Amino acid sequence: MSQNLMLSKLVEAVNERAKGRLSMRISGEDVPVGRFMPPDQAGEGDLSFLTDPRYAEAMKASRAAALVLREKDAAGVFGETLPARTILICDNPYAFFAFASQVFYPVKRNPGIHPRAYVEDGAEVDPTATVDVFAVVRRGAKIGPRALISSGVVVGENCEVGADTIIYPNAVLYEGTVVGEGGCIQSGAVLGGDGFGFAPFRGEWVKIPQRGRTVLGNEVEIGANTTVDRGALEDTVVGEGTKLDNQVQIGHNDRIGRHCVMASCVGIAGSTTVGDHVMIGGAAMINGHITIPSGSGVGPATAITGWGKEPAEQMGFFPALSKREFMLSASITARLPEMRRDLKRLEKEVEQLRALIRKEEAKEA
Amino acid sequence: MSQNLMLSKLVEAVNERAKGRLSMRISGEDVPVGRFMPPDQAGEGDLSFLTDPRYAEAMKASRAAALVLREKDAAGVFGETLPARTILICDNPYAFFAFASQVFYPVKRNPGIHPRAYVEDGAEVDPTATVDVFAVVRRGAKIGPRALISSGVVVGENCEVGADTIIYPNAVLYEGTVVGEGGCIQSGAVLGGDGFGFAPFRGEWVKIPQRGRTVLGNEVEIGANTTVDRGALEDTVVGEGTKLDNQVQIGHNDRIGRHCVMASCVGIAGSTTVGDHVMIGGAAMINGHITIPSGSGVGPATAITGWGKEPAEQMGFFPALSKREFMLSASITARLPEMRRDLKRLEKEVEQLRALIRKEEAKEA
Amino acid sequence: MSQNLMLSKLVEAVNERAKGRLSMRISGEDVPVGRFMPPDQAGEGDLSFLTDPRYAEAMKASRAAALVLREKDAAGVFGETLPARTILICDNPYAFFAFASQVFYPVKRNPGIHPRAYVEDGAEVDPTATVDVFAVVRRGAKIGPRALISSGVVVGENCEVGADTIIYPNAVLYEGTVVGEGGCIQSGAVLGGDGFGFAPFRGEWVKIPQRGRTVLGNEVEIGANTTVDRGALEDTVVGEGTKLDNQVQIGHNDRIGRHCVMASCVGIAGSTTVGDHVMIGGAAMINGHITIPSGSGVGPATAITGWGKEPAEQMGFFPALSKREFMLSASITARLPEMRRDLKRLEKEVEQLRALIRKEEAKEA
Repeated sequence: MSQNLMLSKLVEAVNERAKGRLSMRISGEDVPVGRFMPPDQAGEGDLSFLTDPRYAEAMKASRAAALVLREKDAAGVFGETLPARTILICDNPYAFFAFASQVFYPVKRNPGIHPRAYVEDGAEVDPTATVDVFAVVRRGAKIGPRALISSGVVVGENCEVGADTIIYPNAVLYEGTVVGEGGCIQSGAVLGGDGFGFAPFRGEWVKIPQRGRTVLGNEVEIGANTTVDRGALEDTVVGEGTKLDNQVQIGHNDRIGRHCVMASCVGIAGSTTVGDHVMIGGAAMINGHITIPSGSGVGPATAITGWGKEPAEQMGFFPALSKREFMLSASITARLPEMRRDLKRLEKEVEQLRALIRKEEAKEA
Repeated sequence: MSQNLMLSKLVEAVNERAKGRLSMRISGEDVPVGRFMPPDQAGEGDLSFLTDPRYAEAMKASRAAALVLREKDAAGVFGETLPARTILICDNPYAFFAFASQVFYPVKRNPGIHPRAYVEDGAEVDPTATVDVFAVVRRGAKIGPRALISSGVVVGENCEVGADTIIYPNAVLYEGTVVGEGGCIQSGAVLGGDGFGFAPFRGEWVKIPQRGRTVLGNEVEIGANTTVDRGALEDTVVGEGTKLDNQVQIGHNDRIGRHCVMASCVGIAGSTTVGDHVMIGGAAMINGHITIPSGSGVGPATAITGWGKEPAEQMGFFPALSKREFMLSASITARLPEMRRDLKRLEKEVEQLRALIRKEEAKEA
Repeated sequence: MSQNLMLSKLVEAVNERAKGRLSMRISGEDVPVGRFMPPDQAGEGDLSFLTDPRYAEAMKASRAAALVLREKDAAGVFGETLPARTILICDNPYAFFAFASQVFYPVKRNPGIHPRAYVEDGAEVDPTATVDVFAVVRRGAKIGPRALISSGVVVGENCEVGADTIIYPNAVLYEGTVVGEGGCIQSGAVLGGDGFGFAPFRGEWVKIPQRGRTVLGNEVEIGANTTVDRGALEDTVVGEGTKLDNQVQIGHNDRIGRHCVMASCVGIAGSTTVGDHVMIGGAAMINGHITIPSGSGVGPATAITGWGKEPAEQMGFFPALSKREFMLSASITARLPEMRRDLKRLEKEVEQLRALIRKEEAKEA
C-alpha cells in the first residue's frame, strides 16, 4: 500500500503541498512512519492525530510511532513538559492528516502514451503525462506535466488539462474545455456538454448552438457522473479549489466561485452566480439567473428560487413524518391561506366580543 | 470558428431548416455575415437581432452589417421608411438566431469509419456517416446518412440511428434502441438500459427481463448522463422534438409526448404518460402510472403524485427560509392538523360566546 | 427472440434459479412453451399467468398452451376438478413469470477475450467469461465464470467480479471494487469513485485520499449512471440482493443492507446505515450518519434527516398545487410560528372572555 518514510521527510513533503502555510515542529526523535491509525490501534510506523480533546487519554496511552496534535492540546495531554516520545506539534492536525495521506497514497501513474491510446496529430502531451489505453486526445489539446488521462477518457479538440490533474476512466471533455492544475475529475463526469438552450418556434424548440466553454480553475474536484455544461456564448466557470460531489449538475453560463463545496445531487440551473466559499447541501436545487453571495450556505434538499444581497444560510424541505401524519398535514397545506383568514377573522371577532363585554361592565358600573 | 456567407445564402439555409415556416425578407443590399453580436459591439460581418423593443435605440445606433427584427419593431425603430442599410425583416428573430447559428457553427463530422472503430459484420453504416475511434456498432444496427457516432459510443445490436443524428462520446444505446433523425444525444446518456422491474419472492427480488425498447422520435435531444430505460414489454417512447436536459431519468414504459421540455435532474417513474408540449422544471419528480395532459406545466423541485383530467400548471416545494425560521416553521408542519382542529373549535366557542352575550343584551333590553 | 422448450424443462430451469423454494406442479400434458402473453392474446406456445382473481374469466377462456396459477385460484377458476388442459399450479405465479422470463431471454454472451479488449498481465479471467472489444481489465483483477465485461467497461486493479455477473458498456469499477455473483451493473455506473472527503484548511479544502473499497454482495443490481463511492478508510457496502435503480448516489462508508430496493434518483450521504428489506422511493434524500432500521420505508421525494430506533415508514414533500394556490400557501409557511402563537393567544383570550361572562351571569343570578 504505502511506503514508510522518515517523519522529517513527510513534514517536508506536506510543507510543499501546504505551500508553507501549515506550522509543523517535531519534538523528539525522527522516526519512520507509513500510515495513520486510531490511537488505540497504532504501533510502530503509525501516526495518530488528535482533533478532539476528549480522546486525550487514548492519545497518551497510544503506542503510535508519532503523535500529531496542537500545541495547546499537547499541553493538555502531557502537561508542561513534553515526553521523550516523538510528537509533531501542528496547528491543524486534520489538514496534516489529509496532506500526509496524499503523500502516503499517491495516485498511480505510468507516464507515457499507451500504444493503444489515440492521440491525434496536433495534440501536445507532456512527456511526463499519462495517456492510458483507449483514451482519446484530439488535435489542439494540451495535456500538462504529470497529468493522467485514464482509459476511455475523451479529451476534445483544443482542451487544456493542467499539471498533475487526474481524469478517471470514461470522463468526457468536450471541445475547448479547460481544466486547471491539480484537479481531479471522477469517472463518467461530462464537462462542456451543450447547455440547454432552445428558441421556441411554432410550438417546437430550435436548438441554439452553445459556443461558450467550460472552464475549471486549479484544484477543482468533479464527482462521478457530474455534468458541467458549456456556456451559450460566454463560458461556464468553476473557480479554484471548488469541490463538486457526484451527480451534480451545473447549467450553462453559471459562474461558481472559489473554494465552494457542493454535496451530491445538487442541481444549478443556468446563468446563476455562486460566490466564494459557498456550501450547498445534497440534492439542493438552485434556480437560474440568481446570485448567491460569497459565504452563504444552502441546506440539503432545499429549493432556492431567489436570494437577497447578503450572505445567509437558507434551508427548506417538508419534514418527513410517519405516512399517516404526512397525509394529514399535507392535505392542510393547501388550506393554509383559508386558515390564516379564519384566524384573522376570529381575532377581530374576539376583539368585538371583548368590546361588548366592556360596554356591559361599564353600563353596570 | 465560422465562415462568412452572403445574407441571402444564410436566409436560404435557414429557410431549409425552418421548412419554409419562417417569414424572411431582406431590405437593402446583400452583405456577408458570419456571426451574431450584441448591437453595440457588432460591426462588419456581424448580425444583431432585436426581440425586446427596449433596445430599439441600441439597434438604431448599431454598426452591424445587418439587423434582424420584426416588421412592427422595424417601424418602431426606424419609422415608416426603412433606411438604406441592410435589414432582415423576420417574424421570429430569436428563432432566426437559433437556425442561423446552426448554419454558422455546424457540428464537425469526418465521414467514414475510423480504422480503430469497431463495426461488427452485419451492421449497416451509411457511407456519409461517421464512426469515430473506439466507437462500437453491433450487428444489425443501422446508422443513417451524416449521423455521427463519436468515440467510446456503444451502439447495440439492431439499433437504429437516424439521419443527421449526433451521438457524443461514451453514450450507450442498448440493443434495439431507436433514435430518430436530427437527434442529439449528449455524452454519458444511457438509452435502453433495463427498466427497474422485480418480482417479490420470499423477501427477495427476482429480476424480470425487460423486453421492450427505447424509441426516440425525430429531433429529440437527450442531455448528458440522462437515462431512458427500455420498456418491460412495450416500448418506452420519447416523442418528436422533445428536449431532455442533463441527468433526467425516464422510467420503463413511460410515454413522453412531442415537443416537451424537461430541465435537468427531472425523474419520472415508470408507466407514466406525459402529453405533448409539457414543460417540466428542474428536479421535479413524477410518480409512476400517472397521465399528465398535453400543455401542462410542472414547477421546479415539485413532486407530482397524481393529476386530474385537465391540463394545468402544478407547483410545490417547501420555500427556503433562514435556517432559524425553517427550524421553527418545519416543527409546526406536523402540528397542522392540531392547529386546524383548534381553530375550528375556537370558532365554535366564539360563536357560543356571542350567543351568550346576545342573550344577556336581550335580557337587559 | 426466445426458443420454445417443454414446460417440464422450464420448470426444472426455474426450480434451479429459485433454489427449490418455488412450489410447482404440472397438471395435464407436457407442452412446448416459449413466452408469456396476456390470457386473451395467448395461443400455441404461450404461457399466461394469473395473479388477480378478477381476470379469472379471461383465464378460463384463454387459448394459452399452459396456464400458471395458485392452487386456490385454480379452484376459483375451474372448480373442484381441473380441466384436461395444461395447468401449472404454483404458489407464486409472478415470481414464476420472472424466473421463467430469465430462462426465455438469457443475456447473450460470447465467451472469451476479444482480440481488441485490453487485459493486463496479472489479471485472471475465467475461460467462460467474456471480455468484449475495448474493455479494460487491470492486473490483479479476477473475472468469474460466465461473467460479462462489456465494451468500454474499465475493471481496475485487484477488482473482483463474481460468477454470472453482467457489466454493461462503459461502467467503471475503480481499483479494488468487489462485485458479487449474479450481479447486474448497468451502463455508466461508477463503483468505487472517491468518497467526498476534504479537510478544511485556511478557507480551502484539502482532499483526503479515500482508502476503503466499494463491496457489493451477490445478486446486486446497480442502475444506469448510479454511483457508489469507495469508503474513506472502511468499505462502502451494498448487501446481497439489493436493487438500486438509475442515478442513485451512495456516499462513502454507507452500509446498505440486504434485499433493499431504491427507486431512481435517491441520494444517500456518507456514513449512513440502511438495514435489510428497506424500500426507498424515487428522489428521496437521506442525510449522512443516520441509521435506518431494517424493514423501514421512505416515501418518494422525502428528505430524511434522522430516524428513531424503530422501523417505520416516513414520508414528506410539499404537495403540488396549482401555481396560484402554491404561491398563496407557500408564502404562509414562514408565518406558521406566528399563526401558532396567535392561535394560542386567542385560545387564552376566549377563555378569559368566557370567565368574564360567567362572572356576569353569576352576578345577575
